[in-house]
Parts: sequence; structure tokens; C-alpha cells
Amino acid sequence: MVKLADLGEFRFIDRITPGCDAGDPAHVIQGIGDDAAVVAGTDDPLVITTDMLIERVHFIRDSLSPQQLGYKSLAVNLSDIAAMGARPLDAFISIAVPASVTVKDLDDFYDGMKALAADSGVNLLGGDTTGSRTDLCINVVVTGTAPAHELLFRSGARPGDRIVVTGTLGDSAGGLAVLLDHPDIPGETSAELIRAHVEPELYLREARILAASGAVGGALDVSDGLASDLRHVCEKSCVGAVIDLASVPLSDALHTLCAATGEDPIRLALTGGEDYRLLLTIDPERLDEVQESVARSTGRKLYDIGEVVDGDTITLRETDGSTSILEMSGWDHFKTNPTPGAAEES
Amino acid sequence: MVKLADLGEFRFIDRITPGCDAGDPAHVIQGIGDDAAVVAGTDDPLVITTDMLIERVHFIRDSLSPQQLGYKSLAVNLSDIAAMGARPLDAFISIAVPASVTVKDLDDFYDGMKALAADSGVNLLGGDTTGSRTDLCINVVVTGTAPAHELLFRSGARPGDRIVVTGTLGDSAGGLAVLLDHPDIPGETSAELIRAHVEPELYLREARILAASGAVGGALDVSDGLASDLRHVCEKSCVGAVIDLASVPLSDALHTLCAATGEDPIRLALTGGEDYRLLLTIDPERLDEVQESVARSTGRKLYDIGEVVDGDTITLRETDGSTSILEMSGWDHFKTNPTPGAAEES
Repeated sequence: MVKLADLGEFRFIDRITPGCDAGDPAHVIQGIGDDAAVVAGTDDPLVITTDMLIERVHFIRDSLSPQQLGYKSLAVNLSDIAAMGARPLDAFISIAVPASVTVKDLDDFYDGMKALAADSGVNLLGGDTTGSRTDLCINVVVTGTAPAHELLFRSGARPGDRIVVTGTLGDSAGGLAVLLDHPDIPGETSAELIRAHVEPELYLREARILAASGAVGGALDVSDGLASDLRHVCEKSCVGAVIDLASVPLSDALHTLCAATGEDPIRLALTGGEDYRLLLTIDPERLDEVQESVARSTGRKLYDIGEVVDGDTITLRETDGSTSILEMSGWDHFKTNPTPGAAEES
Repeated sequence: MVKLADLGEFRFIDRITPGCDAGDPAHVIQGIGDDAAVVAGTDDPLVITTDMLIERVHFIRDSLSPQQLGYKSLAVNLSDIAAMGARPLDAFISIAVPASVTVKDLDDFYDGMKALAADSGVNLLGGDTTGSRTDLCINVVVTGTAPAHELLFRSGARPGDRIVVTGTLGDSAGGLAVLLDHPDIPGETSAELIRAHVEPELYLREARILAASGAVGGALDVSDGLASDLRHVCEKSCVGAVIDLASVPLSDALHTLCAATGEDPIRLALTGGEDYRLLLTIDPERLDEVQESVARSTGRKLYDIGEVVDGDTITLRETDGSTSILEMSGWDHFKTNPTPGAAEES
């Protein structure tokens, strides 16, 4: 087997370069191989996001394949670009590799990343490759762009807006629970939940449709859990919210898992994190039209889970009509001891 | 003492945000606090670079102060922007923090970074903060811009060009040698060499003057050692080079160190790495004029160390007139076992 130490850094870079140019080639002035990448300037604003994934904090190497790790490292950044209503342009990958990682692992990692880049029309334009003593460290940067008036911010929620999410919540936390504590859960259920954890779906097309509609108030992606992320939107927008717990979309697989483990699926949805669904607030008079538009173009659904209200309180409406004030928060990287698989910050 | 775990991630982000806006405020549409940063598009091309610094590979935490680590993490990226002939715009910092790092350490780290950002007119526009099990991991991204015709590439060297560097070489390697093996070297010498290693000087103004002059052929920053980096320029430009070893600028401090240790200063200059001087090839008919222009504006010197030639060989001309073919190469992150303080790739 070829070892990384035999291959060397520069031959490794040559090896991973093919297939990195999935985006618009006219946009790239200088790709991999100089001190920096150079791309054409943009008329519209430039959106830039970055996420770091650290072994034994964000992932356990044995719990997902290198391809899946490559997919996920890029996906969590693309999700941030979608949450701004932008389309992605280019990605830059920094990776610090301990000696225990093989060349095949790295090939597979980049294959997973390139497949998603190709699906998303994103160029991989370079980055940094280096060694690490212990843990595999990955940092991905993604740029994107959108017309200024279509950008979506956390601060845009308005009282009266409906609160929607683009998919079921809690599945990623369920997948992590299967990986860590419940390997005995039947195949189909565990496979679906683990997939939600290691290969989260993205909503790039939905984001652009919604951004262009002009009907969206505030937006972000659900990375730390609905409770924590909704609080971010409320704080930035100086509003409160009422969530109908009966309307929060939960998958059959999550119900099956929770029936077996005794966990509350709603608790996983509120605090689990890493779902990477979009959370948006939408003008109530335009919700039906926007839902239809998304469904027609992508076949996907927007789930109406509540309403933006005046004030600064997030209220949970239970299925029996009783209400409670949301006290739970999501993931905090410093307050909680790092746990493998825990959500990273956006 | 305030602990990071008590402070929490979001309050920590609030804490480091003041002073991050050192660049043009009109350029920033959305700074720290959303899913991504948003900046105005650029008419000119956008230059993007990223470098990762890993504890026990690129630095030992005890061998430099948090301020110096903050300075250096940003500096190595600014050096890449300078090497492209561009001016820097914005920086994005990802940091994975083990529990052994204090809030004061992080405050100091950001102070070191913000001081350099202010000097360079760069906005710190966000990034990612997360935990780490063992090693402190830092990834910095810097964007920049320059008119398309002023961009400097590694591939631009032309036979006949003079090869210049913007400062002495080998000092950073000398500083690392002091830190690791020679703590007994006298104060002034060791302080100067260590400073070259932990707080490398930058050449942002010189880079812009040179880029705008139109006299530069190829360019990069010397991060892996003159031998390795000159080879990059030669390979990308399909040329060879002759280096006059007598002309390679060496500091008095490096001579003092080498007199005490028996090392060859030229070997440190060729293979040491992390000097972050600019290496440029310049039209010989314009060299005097360009040197004067740089000296007038910045008080700094360009050192003429050799010539670009046809072919693919790098020849070293010794002080006695004899020549040898350069076989030595610089740092390779995978081939060589990670060593604290070793040069990172550009």
C-alpha cells in the first residue's frame, strides 16, 4: 500500500487535483498550485463561511467512511451558504493528517467531497495539507454569492411570520445515538438515522427559490438543535416564537428508535443538532404559494411548525393545548465536554 | 480566572468581536454573527488563501506567547496574499481549543491577531470556534484583491530575470534551532532569531509596489526554504536558475549562531523555511528603478541573489566561482515526521 510519507505532499496534491473543477471554469483565474487561488470578482456580494471538524470532537473516524467524512465536511459549509440564500462558488480544504491515515483513506475522503462538489457546481480550489500528531483536523471554507436584496439573515424575522423547516428534525441525533449506544437497532431504521447523521441532505435549490421569492424573513440552518437555533433567530430579530410541537416533523425511523430506547423524539428534535435543515420565517400570506413553488421545483416540502410573535419568549404548545416556556438550549462547544459527533457551530 | 467552559461559546464570540473591524467598513455587509459573512463584491479578481497551524507540528505552545501565535497565524496568510501582489481584505479564523487553553490565552491570541489586522487594514469577519481533545488547531483564511494585470504568479519567471528576495534568509530556522537546541545562545542574537521565527516581517506594501510596477515575472513567499520554493517557481515557469551563494543575504545573528553551533548558515537559508520573505523575478532592465522605488517608499531593500536561465536546473555558484547543482529540497509535510516549528505549506 502506498504510504503518504512515500508519496509526499506535492505528489499528493497533484493526485487529488483532477476533478476539483466542478464549477464554472470561466470564473477560475488560478486554481490549485500557487500561493493563493484567484477567481473573478463578483458583481453581487460575496458570502463566506468556514467550519472546522476535529476528530474525537465532531466525528469518530471508525463511525463513518472517509467518503462520508469528505461529504459531510463540505456539506456543513454548503448548508451555511444555503442558509444565507446564496449559491455556492468555491471551496478550500485544509486538512491535517496523522500518520495513521492512509493514502487510500485520503483518496476516498476527496472522492466523497468531489462528488458533492460536482452535484453542487462547486470548484475545489485548494487549501492546505499538513501533518498532525494525533487527530485528523479538517477545515473547509466555501464562498457563495447572491443579489444583495435576496440575502437571508438571522435578523429578518417579523411578528406574524410562519416558522418553517425543510425536513424532519432529530434524525441526526438519533443516528449518533445508534452509533454510540444502540448498535442493536434493526437495519432499516438505523441505516436511515445514521445516514441523516453522516450524509445530511442539503437544500441549495430550495434556498435559492426561497431567497428569490422575497417572502422570507429570517433564516438559518439547524446545526445546534431547533431550540438553540430558533433562539438565535429570535435574539437577532428581537422577536419571540410559538412552536406547535405536534407540527414538528419527526421521521418514522426516529419514532422507532425512541420506542425502543424510551427517549423522547421531541427532545432529540429540539436539542439534538446537526440536522442541517433550513429554518425560515415566511410571510403568512405567501406561505402557500412558496410551498407550492418549492414542491413543484424540487419535490420537497416545507413544514409549518409555528409563528413568530412579539416579545422575547419562545413558547412550546403541547399536543394537549398546554404551553411551556422553552428553557432548553442546544449545543455549546465550550460549556459541554466535547463529545464525538456533536454539532459544530455555523 | 474565567474558564472557557463557564464563559460559553457565544459569550466568547461576543467577547472577541470588538476590534475585528480594522478594514474598510463600507465593504462589510454582515460581519460576525450569522451563518456566513457577507462582503461587497469586487470589480477586480478575488485572491483567497488558507493555512492551517497545528500544535506540535507547526508550533509548541510554550515556545511562543499567545499574542505571537495570533500574529503568526494571520501573518503566514497575509504573506501569501502579498506573494500574489494583492492587498488583503478580510480574514476568517477557525480555532479548535483544548481544555488546557485559558480564556486569557485566547484573549491574548486574538489581541495579537487584531493588532496585525489593524496594521494591515484587514477585517476579522468570523470563522469557527470549537473544542479539541489534545492539540490547539488554527486555520486562517484571508481574501485579497488586485487588478487582474497586476497579479503575480509562480509561473511568470522569464529567462534573464534577476532573482530577488526581500530580506535575510535562514533566520527563522535559526530561531527554531535556538528554541529547540540552543537556549544558551546570548540574548540579543537569540532574541533576533526567535523574533524572525515567531513574528516574521511582512511585505504587503512592497508587494503592491512591485505588482503595480509591471516589472515582476514570477513571485512567491519563501515558506518551505529557498531551495524548495525556488524550485516551485522554476517548475511552474519552465525555467532554471543560477543562485550566487555569496549574494544570499544572511543576518549577523545567523552568523553568530552558526559560529557557535558549527552549522552552515547557507544550508539554513536554503532549507530552513518559514522566512516569509518574498522571492520575485524582475526584468533586469528595471531592477534598479524598482529597487529605488521600494527603498523610497518603505526604506527596505531588495536583495539580488541570482538569475533566471533557460533549462530546468538550479545551479549554485559558490563564493570561489565553482558551481554545483541544487539537490536539496525543503520541507515536505508528509515525507518528514512532523517537527514542532516546521514550515507550513502556502
